Amino acid sequence: MAEPWQNTTLPAHARAADLLARMTNEEKTAQLSSVWIGADTEGADVAPGQHTYAARSAALDALLPYGLGHLTRPFGTVPVDPAEGAARLAGLQRAIRAGNRFRLPAIAHEECLTGFTAWQATVFPTPLAWGATFDPALIAEMAQAIGASMRAVGVHQGLAPVLDVVRDPRWGRTEEAIGEDPYLVGTIGTAYVRGLETAGIVATLKHFAGYSASRAARNHAPASIGPRELADVILPPFEMALREGGARSVMPAYNDIDGLPAHAHVRLLTQLLREEWEFTGTVVSDYYGVSLLEEAHRLTDGEAGAARLALAAGVDVELPAARCFTPADPLPEDLLDRAALRVLTQKCELGLLDPHEGPGAAGTADAPVDLNPPHLRELARRVAEESVVLLANDSGVLPLDGGSRLALLGPLAHEQAAVLGCYTFPRHVGVHHPDLPTGVEVPTLAEALRAELPDAVFVEDPAGADVCLAVVGDRSGLFGRGSSGEGCDAEDLQLPFDQDKLLDEAMACGVPVVIVALGGRPYALGRWADRAAAVVTAFFPGQEGGGAVAGVLSGRVEPSGRLPVAVPRNPGGQPAPYLAPPLGRHGFPSSVDPTPLYPFGHGLSYTAFAWGRPHCDAPEFSTDGETTLRLTVRNTGDRAGTETVQLYLHDPVGTVARPEVRLVGYARVPLEAGASAEVHATFPADLAAYTGADGRRVVEPGALELRVAASSEHVHHTVSLTLTGEARQVGHERRMRCEMRVK
Amino acid sequence: MAEPWQNTTLPAHARAADLLARMTNEEKTAQLSSVWIGADTEGADVAPGQHTYAARSAALDALLPYGLGHLTRPFGTVPVDPAEGAARLAGLQRAIRAGNRFRLPAIAHEECLTGFTAWQATVFPTPLAWGATFDPALIAEMAQAIGASMRAVGVHQGLAPVLDVVRDPRWGRTEEAIGEDPYLVGTIGTAYVRGLETAGIVATLKHFAGYSASRAARNHAPASIGPRELADVILPPFEMALREGGARSVMPAYNDIDGLPAHAHVRLLTQLLREEWEFTGTVVSDYYGVSLLEEAHRLTDGEAGAARLALAAGVDVELPAARCFTPADPLPEDLLDRAALRVLTQKCELGLLDPHEGPGAAGTADAPVDLNPPHLRELARRVAEESVVLLANDSGVLPLDGGSRLALLGPLAHEQAAVLGCYTFPRHVGVHHPDLPTGVEVPTLAEALRAELPDAVFVEDPAGADVCLAVVGDRSGLFGRGSSGEGCDAEDLQLPFDQDKLLDEAMACGVPVVIVALGGRPYALGRWADRAAAVVTAFFPGQEGGGAVAGVLSGRVEPSGRLPVAVPRNPGGQPAPYLAPPLGRHGFPSSVDPTPLYPFGHGLSYTAFAWGRPHCDAPEFSTDGETTLRLTVRNTGDRAGTETVQLYLHDPVGTVARPEVRLVGYARVPLEAGASAEVHATFPADLAAYTGADGRRVVEPGALELRVAASSEHVHHTVSLTLTGEARQVGHERRMRCEMRVK
Repeated sequence: MAEPWQNTTLPAHARAADLLARMTNEEKTAQLSSVWIGADTEGADVAPGQHTYAARSAALDALLPYGLGHLTRPFGTVPVDPAEGAARLAGLQRAIRAGNRFRLPAIAHEECLTGFTAWQATVFPTPLAWGATFDPALIAEMAQAIGASMRAVGVHQGLAPVLDVVRDPRWGRTEEAIGEDPYLVGTIGTAYVRGLETAGIVATLKHFAGYSASRAARNHAPASIGPRELADVILPPFEMALREGGARSVMPAYNDIDGLPAHAHVRLLTQLLREEWEFTGTVVSDYYGVSLLEEAHRLTDGEAGAARLALAAGVDVELPAARCFTPADPLPEDLLDRAALRVLTQKCELGLLDPHEGPGAAGTADAPVDLNPPHLRELARRVAEESVVLLANDSGVLPLDGGSRLALLGPLAHEQAAVLGCYTFPRHVGVHHPDLPTGVEVPTLAEALRAELPDAVFVEDPAGADVCLAVVGDRSGLFGRGSSGEGCDAEDLQLPFDQDKLLDEAMACGVPVVIVALGGRPYALGRWADRAAAVVTAFFPGQEGGGAVAGVLSGRVEPSGRLPVAVPRNPGGQPAPYLAPPLGRHGFPSSVDPTPLYPFGHGLSYTAFAWGRPHCDAPEFSTDGETTLRLTVRNTGDRAGTETVQLYLHDPVGTVARPEVRLVGYARVPLEAGASAEVHATFPADLAAYTGADGRRVVEPGALELRVAASSEHVHHTVSLTLTGEARQVGHERRMRCEMRVK
Repeated sequence: MAEPWQNTTLPAHARAADLLARMTNEEKTAQLSSVWIGADTEGADVAPGQHTYAARSAALDALLPYGLGHLTRPFGTVPVDPAEGAARLAGLQRAIRAGNRFRLPAIAHEECLTGFTAWQATVFPTPLAWGATFDPALIAEMAQAIGASMRAVGVHQGLAPVLDVVRDPRWGRTEEAIGEDPYLVGTIGTAYVRGLETAGIVATLKHFAGYSASRAARNHAPASIGPRELADVILPPFEMALREGGARSVMPAYNDIDGLPAHAHVRLLTQLLREEWEFTGTVVSDYYGVSLLEEAHRLTDGEAGAARLALAAGVDVELPAARCFTPADPLPEDLLDRAALRVLTQKCELGLLDPHEGPGAAGTADAPVDLNPPHLRELARRVAEESVVLLANDSGVLPLDGGSRLALLGPLAHEQAAVLGCYTFPRHVGVHHPDLPTGVEVPTLAEALRAELPDAVFVEDPAGADVCLAVVGDRSGLFGRGSSGEGCDAEDLQLPFDQDKLLDEAMACGVPVVIVALGGRPYALGRWADRAAAVVTAFFPGQEGGGAVAGVLSGRVEPSGRLPVAVPRNPGGQPAPYLAPPLGRHGFPSSVDPTPLYPFGHGLSYTAFAWGRPHCDAPEFSTDGETTLRLTVRNTGDRAGTETVQLYLHDPVGTVARPEVRLVGYARVPLEAGASAEVHATFPADLAAYTGADGRRVVEPGALELRVAASSEHVHHTVSLTLTGEARQVGHERRMRCEMRVK
C-alpha cells in the first residue's frame, strides 16, 4: 500500500507535506543541501574559492543517510564525455536513492547560459546576442532544444536565464544579460524560460535583484538604488518570466541593495516574490551567497547566523554545497519546514518522489549521447545570424564583393575567444584543460570568412587591399581571465588590448575600413565612426558566430539584429543614459553629453523600408482599456530583409520623473524585396503603469505618446493617445505585453 | 499706536502672523517672489538661460505695490563698486519700502561660496579646500568675517554652504563641496554656517538632497539612491548644520531622487525637514528649480502646476525671480499662508518688520567700503595655507632648497584660473567683463614662487634644472567655460587639457619632478606616482593660494592639509569606493581594483610624529553611553608641524552592509619640534547609529572598532569597544559629534 507521498494521483504539495511530516530535522536539512562532486579534487577552479569552500562543505558520504537536495554541476566541473557523464550521474543518483529511507534522488543542476555547459554540447550565442535578435519565438525554440538535451542526460535544473537589466556596460556580466530595456529583457527572457520549462527543466531566474546596478559596475559591489527604480526597471523581467514563463526557481543576487544583501532580503524574497507574486518554486542561493552574508556583507558572525538570515529571508537551498545549512547548528524548525516543503514539492513535480524510476534515473543507457546534433547547430546558427547588427554602412561597402582583396586586421579575428561567451564550456571549463579538444567546431571569424568568400584574396597589408576588415572586441573569460565575463569588469568602455591603436592604424591606411566589433559589451567607437566605411557588431555569437558574421559581411545573410544596449560615443561617462528622464539624457547643463553613438534598438539592413502612417482605432481609451495600431511596412529595396518595428512609450507628464522613452512592443517583419506587411499592435493601458510618488503602481489618465520607431532615437511616427477615466492602481495581475502581429 | 506686527517686544512668529492676517493674497504672493535687477539687460549670463527666464518673470514695477520677498544678487550680477553697490541696494530697498503699505523691504541674497561674490571682495579658497584644512574653528572665523562684510553692505542671506557629500568627483561641482565623508562635511559645513549666522547672515544649506549622487556625475541627472544611503550619507551634514549651526534657510536640489524631484519632495522638504527636524526657516528654490518641475522633470503642465507642487512640498520662495509663484494663477491659500508666514517670520528676525530703519537700510553711507581688508586677506591666507596637502615626498626633495634651479612647467602655473574656484567673482562674473580689473590681488603660482624664492633660478629647460615643478589641474569656470565648476562635469578623472602629456614629458627629463596639482577635483595620478619625487595638491586655494602653495614648497609653511576626497589611481572606475562596505572596496571578485592612490584623510608633513598607544577609560559602555580615549602624539622630527588625529569607526557586524570605515572624529595637533600633546576624544555611542534593515536609525549593542589613524587607510592603533545594553532607536536628538580636545 503506497503512502500518500507516493500516491501519484494526489497533488504535489500534498504529497510533499506528507513526506515532510515523516522526516527528521536532519533529513529536512539534507534536502536544502547540495554536494559538488569533484569540486575539491578534480576540478580547476571554475568558481572562485571553489577548493577552499568545497573542503569546508558537507561531504556526500556524511549526507547520504539523510538524503540530498541538489547535485551541483555534474557536467560543468571537469570535462566528461556526455554518455559517460550521464551514466555517472545516473549511478550517483542510484547511490543517493539507496542511501536514504525515502529513496529520494537529488535535483541535478547545471549552467546553461549559452547552451548546456557540457563538453561537446552546442555552444549558443550569449544572452546579449539573444537580445539583439528581438526574436522571442526563436529564443524559446532554442531554449527548449537546450532543455531537452539536458533532460536527456539527467539534469533537472538550469541556472539560467540572467534577467539583470544592463545598467552600466562596464559590468563584466553584461554579456550574460539580455539588454538595457526591461521590456526586451522580460520578453526575451520569458521566451527562454518557457522553452526550458517546456522541456521539463527548472529555469532559474537570476540574479534577484539589482546585481547589474552595482557601484561603478564592479562585480558584487553595492547597488545604490531606490524602490522606484527597482520596481520599474529591475523587477519587471522577473515578474514576467515567473508569470508568463512559469519559471520554478529564483536565485538571489550577490550584492546588497541600499545596504540589504539580496540573500537576506525579506522584502524581495518573501514579501514580493511569495506573497505578492505567489511564487511557489524554490529559491536557491548563488554559489557561496549564504556564506557571503557572514564573510563579506558582515550581517552576522558564524555560519549558523548566515543560515538563519538566509532561510528567514526566503532562501531554500544553499549552493554549491552545504556549508551553513547543516544540522550541526540546528535551524529553526518552522523555517526548515518551509524550505524543505518547497524542495520536496518541486521534486514531486519533477517525478522524483514517484516509487518507480522517475526522470531522475534518466541516462542509465550507455548509448552514445550527441549534445551537438544538427538541429541544435541549426538553432545556434539561426540565433547567431539574427543577432548580427549592421551599425553603419553609409559607404555601401557592405556586402563585400566576393572577389575583393581583403585585409583582415586584429588578433581576435583568429581567436575562438572572440565568439564564445564566458560561460561556454570551452571558456569556462575547457581553459583549465589545455589539451582537451574544444569538443565542437568553432570556426574563428578568419576561418569563417575564408570559407564564406572563397574567391576573395586575403592580404596582410592594408595598403594593397580593397577593403580592410578591422576586427576588435573581447576575449571572454571569468575572474580576470578575459576582458569580458563574470568578474571581468572594466573601468571604462575603451577597447581593451590596445585595440584603439589597431583602429587608428587601420584608418590611416587609405582604404575603406569595416569595423567588426565582437565581444561581450559595447565599446566606445566615436573616435572612428565618421571615418569607418561600415560598422558591424555581434555579441559573442557562439560556435556558429563566425559564419554568421561572415555571412552578413558577404551578404549571404541579411543583417537583422538590433542593439540590445547602446554603443557609446566616448569611453567614459558611464553609467549609460538609457531610460533616463530628460535631465539624465542631455548635455546641458552638463558639459558631458551622454548621447550614444548608436542608440538602443538601432540596426540597419542591406535593403530599405518605407513605414506607412499608423492608424489607431481608438486614440482615446480608458485606463483599463486598450487600443490597436495598424501600420504597413514595405521593403522598398531590391533585396529581402527584415525590419523590426519598435514601439516606445513617452509619458509627457507624471507624478515622478519618467524615462523619456521605454520599449513597450516590437516585432520582426521579414519582407521579400518589394513586399509589404501590415503590423498590428494591441497596446493595453496597463503598459503605461509606473510607480508613482506614493510608491504604488498606477495607470493614470492623460496624454501619452506611442513612438513607432526603427530605434529608440529613430522615430518614424508619433501616435498621440489619451487615457480617460480614473487613475487605476495595478498589481501582479496587470497586462505586461503589447501583442504584435504581422500579417 | 504700533500694531502687533510692529511691536518689537513680541516674538517674531506672532508679529509675522499678525502681519500675514492683514495681507491680501497678492501681497502674500509677493513675499514669495524675488526680482533679479539687471538680469535681463545688464548682465551677461552668470546663470544659464538667465535672459530668457528674466524676460518671463515678474517685473519690479509690477510687484512694488504688493511688496517683495527677495532681491536677487545685487552684487554678483554685474560688477559694481562696493560702496556704489551698497548705496544702490539701499536705494532700492527704500523704493521697495515705499511701494508697499507695510513698508517692508526685501531680503537681499547673494552668493558667498568662496567669500562674498562681489567685485573687490576677498576671494577665499573653495569649500573642498576648507575640507582639506580639517579645521572647523578657522572656517567658522572665516565665515563670520565674510558674513560681516556682506551685512555691512546690506545683504541678508548667503547662498552657501554646499553640503553635498562628494560621491563621484567627475561632478563639476565637486570643488563646491567639502569632501566625501559626511562627518567632515557636517562639521566643517556647520562651522561655516555658525560663522555666517553669527554675523547675522542667513545661511542657506544646499542642495537638499542627493545632487552629488547624480547618474554618472552629470549635472542635474537623476540620483539613483535608496532611503538608507540618503539617511546615512547624504542627510547628516544638513541635520548637523541646522541643529548645531542654526542655518535659517535650505535650498532643494535640482535633481530627482529615485524619480522624485527635490523641489517637489514632500518627504524631504516637509516630513523630514519641518516635522522631524523642526526647521522653522525658509526653503528657497534653486534658480529656476520651480520651473524645472514643469520644463524638465515634467511633473506638471504649466507654471501654476509647478508652483502648486513646489509650495505643497515645502518650497517657500521662488528664485531667482517670480515666474511660477505669481498671483496670475492664484495659489491655494493655506499653502500661500504657510510659506508667507515663514518669510515674514524671517524678515521679522532680521529686523525688517521694525518700524524704524532696520538692517535692511544699511549701506546708505557713501563712505568707501573695503571688502578686502587685511583681516580678511589674512584669513584667506590661513585657510589657503592649511589646505595645501603634501601627498608624497619619499625623495625628500621638498622643501625646496632656496637656491635651486627650478623648471616650472605647465600653463596653469601662470593662470589665476588655476587658483580661483568657479563661484569666485573673477571667474563667475568677471570673465564676462574682460576689461575689468580682477579687483583683488591674485598672484599666480609662478608669481608667488618667484616672490617666495628670490634666490632661485627659474629655468625653462628642465634638463638644466635641479628640480622640475610640473603644475597641472583645472581652469575653473561655469557651464563649460572651464574644466571644473558648475556644469563642467568630466567623463573620467584623466587630467584635462592634455596635461597627461606634460607629466609624461616631465618624467622623461631625468631631474626630480614635483607634481603640483591645483584644481577643483582629484585627478588620477597613478601613472606617475612611482616616478614623482614629490606630489603636492591644493583645491582652488583662492587669492592667497599661490603664496600658500609656494610657501609649502619652500618650507616656510608647514604642510598640514589632509585629503577631503581620495586621489584615484586610474581615470576610470568611478564612482569612488569611499564609504563602501567590503564588497565595494576590493578588487576580487572584480578585475577592477578601486583602491585609491592616496586615500581620504591622507596628508604628510615635513616632520615626523610618533603616536602613543591610546588609553580607553571604558572599552565597554552602554548604547546610550560614551567612552573617552586618550593618546599622546609627539613631534619626533626637527621642525614644527601639525598632525591630524583621525578616528574612524569600523562596525564589524550590522543588520545591513556597513561602510568599512567612516570618520567619526578628528583634531589638528600643532606641535613644535620635540613637543608632544595629549589628545582626548569623547566618543558617544550615538555615533555608531545607522539606519538598519527596518529603516530605523539604531545604536546596537555589540563589538565596535575605533581606528586611530593618520588617514582612512593608515591606522596607527585599533581600539576594540563593546556596546552593552539594549538596541536604542535614536532620532534628531542624538549626539552627532566626537568631542576632541588637544592638551
